[in-house]
Amino acid sequence: MNVENTEWKKILIPYEHAVEELKVKFKSIRNELRTIGEYSPIEFVTGRVKKVSSIIEKARKLDVSHEEIPDKIEDIAGIRIMCQFVEDIYTVVDYIRDRDGEDLEVVLEKDYINNYKDSGYRSYHVVIKYPIHTALGPKNILAEIQIRTLAMNFWAIIEHSLKYKYKQQIPPHINERLKKAADAAFKLDQEMSEIRHEIRQAQKFFEVRSNT
Amino acid sequence: MNVENTEWKKILIPYEHAVEELKVKFKSIRNELRTIGEYSPIEFVTGRVKKVSSIIEKARKLDVSHEEIPDKIEDIAGIRIMCQFVEDIYTVVDYIRDRDGEDLEVVLEKDYINNYKDSGYRSYHVVIKYPIHTALGPKNILAEIQIRTLAMNFWAIIEHSLKYKYKQQIPPHINERLKKAADAAFKLDQEMSEIRHEIRQAQKFFEVRSNT
Amino acid sequence: MNVENTEWKKILIPYEHAVEELKVKFKSIRNELRTIGEYSPIEFVTGRVKKVSSIIEKARKLDVSHEEIPDKIEDIAGIRIMCQFVEDIYTVVDYIRDRDGEDLEVVLEKDYINNYKDSGYRSYHVVIKYPIHTALGPKNILAEIQIRTLAMNFWAIIEHSLKYKYKQQIPPHINERLKKAADAAFKLDQEMSEIRHEIRQAQKFFEVRSNT
Amino acid sequence: MNVENTEWKKILIPYEHAVEELKVKFKSIRNELRTIGEYSPIEFVTGRVKKVSSIIEKARKLDVSHEEIPDKIEDIAGIRIMCQFVEDIYTVVDYIRDRDGEDLEVVLEKDYINNYKDSGYRSYHVVIKYPIHTALGPKNILAEIQIRTLAMNFWAIIEHSLKYKYKQQIPPHINERLKKAADAAFKLDQEMSEIRHEIRQAQKFFEVRSNT
Repeated sequence: MNVENTEWKKILIPYEHAVEELKVKFKSIRNELRTIGEYSPIEFVTGRVKKVSSIIEKARKLDVSHEEIPDKIEDIAGIRIMCQFVEDIYTVVDYIRDRDGEDLEVVLEKDYINNYKDSGYRSYHVVIKYPIHTALGPKNILAEIQIRTLAMNFWAIIEHSLKYKYKQQIPPHINERLKKAADAAFKLDQEMSEIRHEIRQAQKFFEVRSNT
Repeated sequence: MNVENTEWKKILIPYEHAVEELKVKFKSIRNELRTIGEYSPIEFVTGRVKKVSSIIEKARKLDVSHEEIPDKIEDIAGIRIMCQFVEDIYTVVDYIRDRDGEDLEVVLEKDYINNYKDSGYRSYHVVIKYPIHTALGPKNILAEIQIRTLAMNFWAIIEHSLKYKYKQQIPPHINERLKKAADAAFKLDQEMSEIRHEIRQAQKFFEVRSNT
Repeated sequence: MNVENTEWKKILIPYEHAVEELKVKFKSIRNELRTIGEYSPIEFVTGRVKKVSSIIEKARKLDVSHEEIPDKIEDIAGIRIMCQFVEDIYTVVDYIRDRDGEDLEVVLEKDYINNYKDSGYRSYHVVIKYPIHTALGPKNILAEIQIRTLAMNFWAIIEHSLKYKYKQQIPPHINERLKKAADAAFKLDQEMSEIRHEIRQAQKFFEVRSNT
Repeated sequence: MNVENTEWKKILIPYEHAVEELKVKFKSIRNELRTIGEYSPIEFVTGRVKKVSSIIEKARKLDVSHEEIPDKIEDIAGIRIMCQFVEDIYTVVDYIRDRDGEDLEVVLEKDYINNYKDSGYRSYHVVIKYPIHTALGPKNILAEIQIRTLAMNFWAIIEHSLKYKYKQQIPPHINERLKKAADAAFKLDQEMSEIRHEIRQAQKFFEVRSNT
């Protein structure tokens, strides 16, 4: 078992490498914007390498062989970017698209905001191919970037925690309530965006008046 | 101006010291519980030392002299603890109370959850006196610990960002909407707690049945 | 094997907690002194929890049972403090002694500088009892603080690396050379201290002259 | 003065970004090699952005205008890589050269080991051009990578600290002693390499004998 652990550690080390680099890169954008006094669409950034047990489980579910894991499981390296407002998500997606062909390659996008999952789950996913330099030479790593608002994140953390704890036991009426909670969280996001928009409009109105 | 900056840096260094220690302490509780496979009421922990400009502004507003700042401004060292569920907040408060007289001293508690602010702001605040050991000897530092759910945090971050950006210009009808959004966020928290509670009840029911 | 791994993780989590706190505490002293423009006897600080395989090996060698490990193996939590000059080591030891009975308790001191090991190894060791607060209540942890100059550290890292790689195979004449290298490193330390001392003397002389 | 501070912060933010990324990249090589059970030529890695006062001083000394600073001052972003043995330095240099034209571009190499400075200073310097992606688009940053043994680092830290403290006052006979100390430190490095070499030879000899 220990042998296997060591084997997995070797497999996962480039993913850890990629996660660390990507975390630095997105955090740097936030720091940069705040330093120059501009609004940052990125509120905070986290990253993680998928747990071995979760990789094995996912491989089994998707009928993926051990050898295919690096090509078929896209979220072994995972980055999560939290935004204040829904529209910030698309600004961040644009940042990533602008770098396509530069320091990363966009493989796939999934818009789980306009097409949210049955469970109520909302987030924007971008799968990228990311080149790292190991001691043995260059290597491309798949990584999944999840971009979501703080409210979407709040719901997702709680749903994940409930799923993990009670797994197969969640009865349909509870799932229904979770879904409604997701809708309520999203309505809250929209309300927050509108408030921001209204204040901006009001500001413009005042600016125009005070200039006359 | 540079001289003042250096002066402030010297004043703030023990606060940074306290924030670093407290962050390690609360993060360790989370790591510990997760390692032993128990639910952690702490989801994540952040900390910061108040910016000099904000300290000066607060001192002016509260009519506090430069000398009184360390005794009268309680949130120069600030720790923020985020929880998944409202009831977790009170578990964390109990942790802190249990340590009163041990590695910290509870000075003051403010329950802005049951008595939320007019703006809609909700959080539980605990002001503590925290002993650190500097190169020049021991020293007591005031620190404010804010404990809140992810939903409360989501609302507070956005309100803070709007306040900062548009300050005096927020018209009353916008404030009204922000307040309603805070209520909606809190309702969401209560819904999430209920869902968790219901699943637990269902589990117990199943456990009882499967044991007969 | 996995079960054992989990068991060990649970045992080691309070040691990680203690190492993190102690690292923050000693780094803060350095930051504090540099911020106020004073010389810091601490150049840098590292920390680690002993690897499970090394704990098991040491327990076997010392004939310590599994239950006695926390009381008998003193270096599961390890802190290393690097200093520029030999005399700084004793300043750091004094810092620690001053805190005896405050946030830590000194259990044992070993002066491997005046009484260096046969191998040539030099460092000052202080074993402390350090109180942490876990989710389950307070707990005392043994930790070993190793204080050494950069030159002593240079030698120790290389000796450790050679020992690890070639273990039983080191022939006596190589050990002899390693020992001589340790002496040369120490002579270098003394030379550096003298240079510092001479410059200070020269400075005082100039100051006296320029004040007349 | 505050205005200037803010201006400098804006100028330096991309350098901080580059330093963070490069630190992750070189630390990852070490972690990778240790995880796969191979010897790492990298013992540890540090990084820093040059202090504003030092940049200004250097610009004045080199007669570099404010606008030319990013192109003419090569060590605003600085990475330091510490190795156990002198030969490791050249392995690390080869790693960097192998990546020339990939994620970085080698601009310049200075071998202060074979051509050590008058002061006795030894290190290998590689100046690179490193591309980062800011919120405003891609940008090339100059960075200086200093590669040295632990013994060279020990000497350099102490020399720097003495220079800083006593600046113009260092009399020639002290400089002479510092220089001799640098030679002694280098002799120690050579001795350590030889010991390693001898053990290796001995091992091969034993392996040959035990195979017969």
